[in-house]
Amino acid sequence: MKKFTSVSDVENLQEIIKKALQIKENPLSETEKGKGKTIGLVFLNSSLRTRLSSQIAAQNLGLNILTLNAAQEAWSLEFADGAAMNGDTVEHIKDAIEVLNQYCDIIAVRCFAGMKSKEDDVNESILSQFEQHAKVPVISLESATRHPLQSLADCITITENWHFDDSSSSPQAKLSVKSKPKVVLTWAPHIKPIAHAVGNSFAEWMQEMDVELVIANPEGYDLDKNFTKDVKVIHDQEEALKDADFIYVKNWSSFDDYAAMPEVKENWMLTNKKLANTNQGKVMHCLPVRRNVELSDEVMDSKNSIIYQQAKNRIFSAQAVFSEILDELNSK
Amino acid sequence: MKKFTSVSDVENLQEIIKKALQIKENPLSETEKGKGKTIGLVFLNSSLRTRLSSQIAAQNLGLNILTLNAAQEAWSLEFADGAAMNGDTVEHIKDAIEVLNQYCDIIAVRCFAGMKSKEDDVNESILSQFEQHAKVPVISLESATRHPLQSLADCITITENWHFDDSSSSPQAKLSVKSKPKVVLTWAPHIKPIAHAVGNSFAEWMQEMDVELVIANPEGYDLDKNFTKDVKVIHDQEEALKDADFIYVKNWSSFDDYAAMPEVKENWMLTNKKLANTNQGKVMHCLPVRRNVELSDEVMDSKNSIIYQQAKNRIFSAQAVFSEILDELNSK
Amino acid sequence: MKKFTSVSDVENLQEIIKKALQIKENPLSETEKGKGKTIGLVFLNSSLRTRLSSQIAAQNLGLNILTLNAAQEAWSLEFADGAAMNGDTVEHIKDAIEVLNQYCDIIAVRCFAGMKSKEDDVNESILSQFEQHAKVPVISLESATRHPLQSLADCITITENWHFDDSSSSPQAKLSVKSKPKVVLTWAPHIKPIAHAVGNSFAEWMQEMDVELVIANPEGYDLDKNFTKDVKVIHDQEEALKDADFIYVKNWSSFDDYAAMPEVKENWMLTNKKLANTNQGKVMHCLPVRRNVELSDEVMDSKNSIIYQQAKNRIFSAQAVFSEILDELNSK
Repeated sequence: MKKFTSVSDVENLQEIIKKALQIKENPLSETEKGKGKTIGLVFLNSSLRTRLSSQIAAQNLGLNILTLNAAQEAWSLEFADGAAMNGDTVEHIKDAIEVLNQYCDIIAVRCFAGMKSKEDDVNESILSQFEQHAKVPVISLESATRHPLQSLADCITITENWHFDDSSSSPQAKLSVKSKPKVVLTWAPHIKPIAHAVGNSFAEWMQEMDVELVIANPEGYDLDKNFTKDVKVIHDQEEALKDADFIYVKNWSSFDDYAAMPEVKENWMLTNKKLANTNQGKVMHCLPVRRNVELSDEVMDSKNSIIYQQAKNRIFSAQAVFSEILDELNSK
Repeated sequence: MKKFTSVSDVENLQEIIKKALQIKENPLSETEKGKGKTIGLVFLNSSLRTRLSSQIAAQNLGLNILTLNAAQEAWSLEFADGAAMNGDTVEHIKDAIEVLNQYCDIIAVRCFAGMKSKEDDVNESILSQFEQHAKVPVISLESATRHPLQSLADCITITENWHFDDSSSSPQAKLSVKSKPKVVLTWAPHIKPIAHAVGNSFAEWMQEMDVELVIANPEGYDLDKNFTKDVKVIHDQEEALKDADFIYVKNWSSFDDYAAMPEVKENWMLTNKKLANTNQGKVMHCLPVRRNVELSDEVMDSKNSIIYQQAKNRIFSAQAVFSEILDELNSK
Repeated sequence: MKKFTSVSDVENLQEIIKKALQIKENPLSETEKGKGKTIGLVFLNSSLRTRLSSQIAAQNLGLNILTLNAAQEAWSLEFADGAAMNGDTVEHIKDAIEVLNQYCDIIAVRCFAGMKSKEDDVNESILSQFEQHAKVPVISLESATRHPLQSLADCITITENWHFDDSSSSPQAKLSVKSKPKVVLTWAPHIKPIAHAVGNSFAEWMQEMDVELVIANPEGYDLDKNFTKDVKVIHDQEEALKDADFIYVKNWSSFDDYAAMPEVKENWMLTNKKLANTNQGKVMHCLPVRRNVELSDEVMDSKNSIIYQQAKNRIFSAQAVFSEILDELNSK
């Protein structure tokens, strides 16, 4: 693997899921692989799971870790090409990246959508600079439009919770009546305009999985078609949830009317009552979650929730990716 | 040891002091004990000594370390059960703890008193959530009402500075005229309302040591009786200090009139003049200290001060505790 | 080496440059040298290169690392001796240093000029406290008047980019017509009053190198004579740049009229046009740089720039210094 910023960087999704599950069985099986190499973890935004799981994954592989909270610890960054830097910004992102090239064997970066300019966010104004200027492999720790380490953890978690038929190529051999789980990505309420990265990314990765994906969101909240493509989008949550095996809860703001929050009259918070309509659906969320806004306490704390399992799988998602990147580096 | 949040988690105080002193002799004697295990150091508040000494202790034991400055690096936390999280808080402490359960073998947390609600502080509104939701051992790095790693370091320091008779059970064998040191915990002035944790904790731990404890504070500043119990409280500093062998200097605000600062007419700052009245008393303070407010420069910089020795012993206090917690984990 | 706060702490500059270049060839040749020892990296100010390169250097030497972002993570510090600490400061720098003495084998500290009091800055009001109170070797990560790890990296970089004649003691053996490079330290525009540390320090170190140093700055911007001594100062940039082999770009504010920014009528930003006048001069800058203010994009991104090479050499500069300090510690 040469870099990891979207599902298209993964050669074989089933293989990397399998690898991650092997790592989960034995996290310390490759403690020498990263020896003498350094990963830079650059945070332009807050992070709990990504920060900690990336560190654990790197430690398990014997990597040296440089963590940089860029905003607080270093210098305020300029992102505009050609800018005369006579304002508040002190260092151009290009120069920061070139320095990271000198210091790191792998650069991992978190750079959220700014939620101000649709064009900047859609074009990945920050991540694209890393992709352009980095001379070492770049890993996204969530960017403006995608959160691929989360999505890989989601794939791992769904795999653990569903009996996928290995012989899916020969349909006559299938034992289960229902061979594919129904996976519903359902919009949830929030109080602030939230980015589309997790929604986009989940949609994109699920299209590579052997699942039936449905997206449920209110009118005005359809995600970018470049990510959802032909996936069925339903504006009625109850209808969408029917017989769902997995329910992925996530808020996002409007994409068309970028970062706006058009009024929603129905209550989209996930509750146990709504779950009753599903096929004992497992509930997923990337965290952090606003309890009793996005979903109710009763759902969060129920047996249906596999949310903490998802969080744990962030370690193995990261470790599988770092490991494949190291394979590439070590093969040179 | 299953957890460490107060003196009641210590089975045998003399044993753990002895262990800490052995570690001080040879800090790298157990570098394999923590291998493959991870300690999460979660700071909800500022820290210098606790932050550094915990890291050194963990490094000496071969533990992986995840440090999280929760407020700056992660998400603003909700502490109220059942809250509809439609305000400023982004993640519920319960969920953060459950994630830490997935990532860490030990969770250590610093969570100061808020000094706003007496009830919240007395009930340890934050630490109690860690105790309730953590599935791995919890270590307090100072909570609303206690600072046990500091208190253990204080016990170690007093032990180093007093010839305790090992055969204290047979009084006729005693060589020294005075078998128990007189230890005075004396209130000191401050400019802001300060929490009771260090005072409470010191009082609690000293009651488990073979010392004569006296507490000196102005009227209106008596500590919570649940911690001081039958310890003699004197409102006249000069009287209290008489013949003291150890003088522990610390400010705290009113407990009865919670977080208030009733006027104090006498000058309670510790000076050399006041020390003359003691038995060449050794001066202690947990740091940080406000010089020339809590105690004078001359005291701080005198030979009577064992304050930096105390600070150093924070390493061995932490390492003894982490080591005992690891014994428990490794025995499973 | 007993400490490292200026060039005068270096016994033999050529030797340490040679050592750094050997380390660059083989950074992991001394991974056992720091085992069981701890370096404290104390940041009172922002840092990217210094933060990361120091960590890499320390990791390469097997040192334990304690990083402290003092302002954000610990307590606000008092610097005035004898102060009654009844204001905003919580811990005296003296006490913080004494605690670091207990915890670290080496203390490295970044403490920029305050740019308010000339006297405080010239007297190194913060670093001097470290030098006075530290009982372990002190390393400057940039102080009010000097940035020696940067300057050593600059010496390494110039050495890599110039064919210095080893037999310079026998002039008749010289092969090149020009035996010494012309090095121009040129002032550059900025929008804020910037400290003198990098300029001072570069001037000081270059006087120890076998180079012809010239300083170019506008009237009113002469550096402190204690650093520049007999170095030629030219107020006409074009004249100074003529035939330059190395051009070091850096802003600083007025020293005489301390921290003022007297008006400058000419445009001092370095451009390709100005470079044409040099001897294919290599361009240097310590970073961060304000593009299109201090120098143009075209210069920054040209082949003449050796700025990223300089940044990389920060690792080997730090590692050579840490290694020599460890030699001293290990010899005790």
